[in-house]
Amino acid sequence: MTDREKIIKRLKEEDKFILISHMLPDGDSIGSLLAMGEGLRRSGKKVTLITPGHIPRKYTFLKGSERVKHEVLIDDPAIPVIVLDSSDPERLGLLRDEIMKSSEVFNIDHHVTNQRFGTLNYVDPEAAATGEIIYHILEDLEVEIDENIAEALYVAISTDTGSFKYDNTTPNTHRVVATLLESGISPGTISSMIFDERPLSFYILLKEALSTLELYESRRLAVMTLSKDIKDRSGATSDDLEGIVNYTRNIEGIELGILFYLDNQGEIKVGFRSKSLDVSILAGKLNGGGHIRAAGARIEGDFETVKDKVIAEACKMLKELSA
Amino acid sequence: MTDREKIIKRLKEEDKFILISHMLPDGDSIGSLLAMGEGLRRSGKKVTLITPGHIPRKYTFLKGSERVKHEVLIDDPAIPVIVLDSSDPERLGLLRDEIMKSSEVFNIDHHVTNQRFGTLNYVDPEAAATGEIIYHILEDLEVEIDENIAEALYVAISTDTGSFKYDNTTPNTHRVVATLLESGISPGTISSMIFDERPLSFYILLKEALSTLELYESRRLAVMTLSKDIKDRSGATSDDLEGIVNYTRNIEGIELGILFYLDNQGEIKVGFRSKSLDVSILAGKLNGGGHIRAAGARIEGDFETVKDKVIAEACKMLKELSA
Repeated sequence: MTDREKIIKRLKEEDKFILISHMLPDGDSIGSLLAMGEGLRRSGKKVTLITPGHIPRKYTFLKGSERVKHEVLIDDPAIPVIVLDSSDPERLGLLRDEIMKSSEVFNIDHHVTNQRFGTLNYVDPEAAATGEIIYHILEDLEVEIDENIAEALYVAISTDTGSFKYDNTTPNTHRVVATLLESGISPGTISSMIFDERPLSFYILLKEALSTLELYESRRLAVMTLSKDIKDRSGATSDDLEGIVNYTRNIEGIELGILFYLDNQGEIKVGFRSKSLDVSILAGKLNGGGHIRAAGARIEGDFETVKDKVIAEACKMLKELSA
Repeated sequence: MTDREKIIKRLKEEDKFILISHMLPDGDSIGSLLAMGEGLRRSGKKVTLITPGHIPRKYTFLKGSERVKHEVLIDDPAIPVIVLDSSDPERLGLLRDEIMKSSEVFNIDHHVTNQRFGTLNYVDPEAAATGEIIYHILEDLEVEIDENIAEALYVAISTDTGSFKYDNTTPNTHRVVATLLESGISPGTISSMIFDERPLSFYILLKEALSTLELYESRRLAVMTLSKDIKDRSGATSDDLEGIVNYTRNIEGIELGILFYLDNQGEIKVGFRSKSLDVSILAGKLNGGGHIRAAGARIEGDFETVKDKVIAEACKMLKELSA
């Protein structure tokens, strides 16, 4: 019997479950938690849903989100705990020790880095989202996918795939979503709530960043600059800053985007984004690292000197590309 | 025999076809044209592909796009013409008369407003994109969906659904796309090419618009202002302007967004975007119109007077919403 089959069996046998997903909740963790909770409830089970941390406002339209708890007290360690979308127990934050006291921990996740920390582990790295796995579990439990469950699973899957744009999206992802839409949910209403929106601070920071936009190498290189002062004045967060880096690459014709960030401590953070260049090589030359299309480095020194050096390296790479 | 069946029959019988899609080509028209062309070619047919107008740069990665012609001379009116994604013959621009000379016109489209101008008409308004219809035609023709056809159809369907975010997306749309992904195409690579990118002029205009951002009614109303002078100075197009209006609504917590545009002729264009309010009512009060979440009006008069009046109406509506 596989762990998956064992989990299904235990889900059918037991009457009470504690469900928890990771801290800094995202669409997949919240959606999976609510869908799994509602599915078990519809099968006549008692469930307690927990997330260590505040649910972002954009997900609070999901039915049942108001009943999710943020703390846990395990008074009966015999109640099985279902841990969702968490690659390791550290992702449960301060609730970790309390949760790991339970005699049964079902670890259900799609992260390839999952630590198999459960007493039973159903980890499918082929799944685009934990929500995709939950869909199949509810199928196995013969739970009817009603509108509330479908909405929660749609949020889980669409957020983890960037609305089906990322390469983790598989034929199975689309087939699952086809079935979710059959319950009558509106992809338009849900998508406008979970995508598109950004905090005001982001737009203020974006305005500042766009004011510094410089183009090099026949408009193939875009450079923007921000400082901690400007970030603080905009009321912006690190998340906002992360969003800005991506904008450097979103300009038509731009091959490579760079964001310089002066952190007030004499350190310059350089973010690289590209459309076809391998920027991990570029970052590597500056003792940084990252992925092919998104990388970065931290450099100490005088800003103008660092900037000249980084732009020179970037231009060299762009020249090689066109050569 | 339905028109659909008659079209399939004729596609099997004849050896030569002319395919054309509408002017101002978009992802669906280009993708449908290329997929249908390649599908017929693989069935041993001779095809000529035409689009009246320039193919946007972001679609030129599609294989075969370099062979699409922009003019047509019908020397044999017996060759059937397949018109794709065009609700009426006017959409063919200057090529309209030449095309309509043909003795057989197969009109294949998904627009609910389609004029049924063909000798045979296969119009399916349930289809999210003409590409979705082409997929089913190729199924009927038993054409194998290779990577090139899949890529073209993916572009067609994903662009017309905003990457599956719009409410025209159906279970069938997702099922078709599941099959397309099975051919091995990369949704990540394609999506980053066709979404996310905007011209430099858009970002310059966005910076200007963000500099004018004002908030009212406990940050539930966002107002931005642009003028023709600023638009021209930014090198921006009407498309860019259209994109800016949407940004008013993309700020977290904002219920209603307004963009004022001073056109130099003493006319003020007002664009409304909302998350839950019916802005067609608001636009109606100002002799404008539109949809529930996107509407607009044109008002003559002194800017400050018009602005005060519009903002007062908007605030009144927001107050009623919270009352």
